[in-house]
Amino acid sequence: MRQSIIGLLTDFGCGDSWVGQMKAVMLSIVPEARLVDITHQIPPFDVAGGAFQLMTAAAAFGDDSVLLAVVDPGVGSARRALAIRTRRRWLVGPDNGLLEPLAAWEGIEQAIELAPDRVARGMVSQTFHGRDIFAPAAAHLAAGTAMEKLGSSVGLIEPCPVPLSLPWPADDGHDGELVTRVIWIDRFGNLVLNLRAEHAGDVQASKLPPMIFEAGDHRIHGLRRTFSDVAEGEPVAYVGSSGWLEIAMRNEDAALRLGVKRGDTVRIQLGGHDP
Amino acid sequence: MRQSIIGLLTDFGCGDSWVGQMKAVMLSIVPEARLVDITHQIPPFDVAGGAFQLMTAAAAFGDDSVLLAVVDPGVGSARRALAIRTRRRWLVGPDNGLLEPLAAWEGIEQAIELAPDRVARGMVSQTFHGRDIFAPAAAHLAAGTAMEKLGSSVGLIEPCPVPLSLPWPADDGHDGELVTRVIWIDRFGNLVLNLRAEHAGDVQASKLPPMIFEAGDHRIHGLRRTFSDVAEGEPVAYVGSSGWLEIAMRNEDAALRLGVKRGDTVRIQLGGHDP
Amino acid sequence: MRQSIIGLLTDFGCGDSWVGQMKAVMLSIVPEARLVDITHQIPPFDVAGGAFQLMTAAAAFGDDSVLLAVVDPGVGSARRALAIRTRRRWLVGPDNGLLEPLAAWEGIEQAIELAPDRVARGMVSQTFHGRDIFAPAAAHLAAGTAMEKLGSSVGLIEPCPVPLSLPWPADDGHDGELVTRVIWIDRFGNLVLNLRAEHAGDVQASKLPPMIFEAGDHRIHGLRRTFSDVAEGEPVAYVGSSGWLEIAMRNEDAALRLGVKRGDTVRIQLGGHDP
Repeated sequence: MRQSIIGLLTDFGCGDSWVGQMKAVMLSIVPEARLVDITHQIPPFDVAGGAFQLMTAAAAFGDDSVLLAVVDPGVGSARRALAIRTRRRWLVGPDNGLLEPLAAWEGIEQAIELAPDRVARGMVSQTFHGRDIFAPAAAHLAAGTAMEKLGSSVGLIEPCPVPLSLPWPADDGHDGELVTRVIWIDRFGNLVLNLRAEHAGDVQASKLPPMIFEAGDHRIHGLRRTFSDVAEGEPVAYVGSSGWLEIAMRNEDAALRLGVKRGDTVRIQLGGHDP
Repeated sequence: MRQSIIGLLTDFGCGDSWVGQMKAVMLSIVPEARLVDITHQIPPFDVAGGAFQLMTAAAAFGDDSVLLAVVDPGVGSARRALAIRTRRRWLVGPDNGLLEPLAAWEGIEQAIELAPDRVARGMVSQTFHGRDIFAPAAAHLAAGTAMEKLGSSVGLIEPCPVPLSLPWPADDGHDGELVTRVIWIDRFGNLVLNLRAEHAGDVQASKLPPMIFEAGDHRIHGLRRTFSDVAEGEPVAYVGSSGWLEIAMRNEDAALRLGVKRGDTVRIQLGGHDP
Repeated sequence: MRQSIIGLLTDFGCGDSWVGQMKAVMLSIVPEARLVDITHQIPPFDVAGGAFQLMTAAAAFGDDSVLLAVVDPGVGSARRALAIRTRRRWLVGPDNGLLEPLAAWEGIEQAIELAPDRVARGMVSQTFHGRDIFAPAAAHLAAGTAMEKLGSSVGLIEPCPVPLSLPWPADDGHDGELVTRVIWIDRFGNLVLNLRAEHAGDVQASKLPPMIFEAGDHRIHGLRRTFSDVAEGEPVAYVGSSGWLEIAMRNEDAALRLGVKRGDTVRIQLGGHDP
């Protein structure tokens, strides 16, 4: 029997029983599934934050995994419920931009609008589609049900409200300025920018152009490999473990020390000439 | 082999290793069990809050699941340790009212006082019966051990310190006032009242009488289906996804905006005549 | 097939996707493993706190479990990555003192420095060895791979930065003063001291010498069995459920009420003569 893996991401927190209810529903449909929490601490209604964490986590999950994401301020309204087949796996969640960056990144093969009467086990509540629609849909996919049986094809899906991955300048002109945003601040206070290393070279940073980062009042010259390449308390820019460019302070909270909040702008001077 | 599901609810939080210890003990007894966290963020010693979340989560768990709940300010004292067979499943936890609302709701078939020497794997600590008594008892039940082997029958069990479900007026007289309490405030700031829709009609609310809710300084007229039936920032009363009446503000924190705390009174005028 | 259990402890919190990524990697290597969270709420970079929780949790995990611990301020630097075989189980984590107290307690049979090229599934990031080295190493051990295949033997490992277990005076001289530290404050505000009951008697406390504890401005006379041996709001010293000496207040937060912080000193007068 296939050991299906379902990854879960929500903004439900851990203080209520919602995630537990979703898991109980899924195991009642596919008892042998392995359920892996990605995170449930997405800030309430923060679709872009959820999209970022989903895209960050996905690469660790194998092909044919199912990723179930619910950050759903529009629950009960007319927003569609989606299942998407990408070139690597299935995604399930609301059509509000939450799934779009990862789906676009991996390549969409097919998208389905979930039909409640083909998915739900019983009555569908107006306020908890995570339990009543998305969880059973993810479980059915993990159990091997063909996606077409769960709804009907759709074309375009909603874009993410914040771009997670800015375009780099063309390869032959690496000068100029990039205006990035802090799309996430992690537990350690590291700043994640909406700029990925793949766009300008490989993740070893060896092929990236010279850069100067302006974060708060600080200027940070160049990319390093990791925190421990600078002294304690020094700011450092580097390619994070999932491919985004990040700014940290060794063994310190960079967000606190640099006075940078989520959504703030970080300008990057490309070409290395300090203006 | 049976894929037994054990749901866990405690006030242990996630910062200590207690829940992990309980799970390790259970898996040593019944390695094939599926462990599902309901929540471990019940406020410390909050028996009524735990009872509310247990009753909220239970319906999502299938028949013959085991629900293990530990909110246990009296650990080490003379309070009894219980296993209960309801018409649907097994419940395990201390006899302090934590299990009582769900047990009464589902119907008690038998209740057992757990005998430590029949349940524990080794020495029983004075302060952690979750690991030493309740977890092994739940695991033995999930493994198929007959409940009678774990202790001796008891009659009445302790009631919950707060009523989770008020009686409605008789069906033929839906006028008057109901004085409800806020028994839970969820992550999104939604207020849950100790009043269930089933008592006066079905959960679609179509058969409920006209109502006016007085929450803080606000008056809310009528029940709606869901948040998105009102404008952003408007308060709304509705039947929540687990059958309780709730008050929310669309895409806002109702508790914060209405100035309502857990335990506060919410009066409901029935019959729809604004006094 | 063996139902391998892997216990996880980190300082990664639950707001990012790191723990989920580690689990996804492990299940891709050993799909049948049972993953049990010990805690991910170790304060950032708090190696001693992690070592304490690891040692606290270990006894509940059966023989031949794998315990994977990552509190790793030195990630990307020259610190070694370890796998240790103790007399009971395998430990995996950085060589910074995190594993040392438990390893010493259980007895080290062999220690290996993990070789990234023998362990990692692909490219190894500079900042997330939890996912790229430690998780696959733990999964390989759980799958039955011989430890020698994952690296080469090492001798001494780094000690924990804080002693978790002070020596008691010799058995024939139980008078004098012990200067302990608060190594942990749990969710309920109970204070855990770096002193274990086993060193001077058994965990029933019956063989421990008379003691007077000085915690904040309070003096606490004698060891009791548990909280409920004193009146509500009274301080009480007892042997905790994992063998450490602890100070609590019945149904109160002892840390708050006694004004004691983690790392503070608690003096113990042995022999029972109030000076």
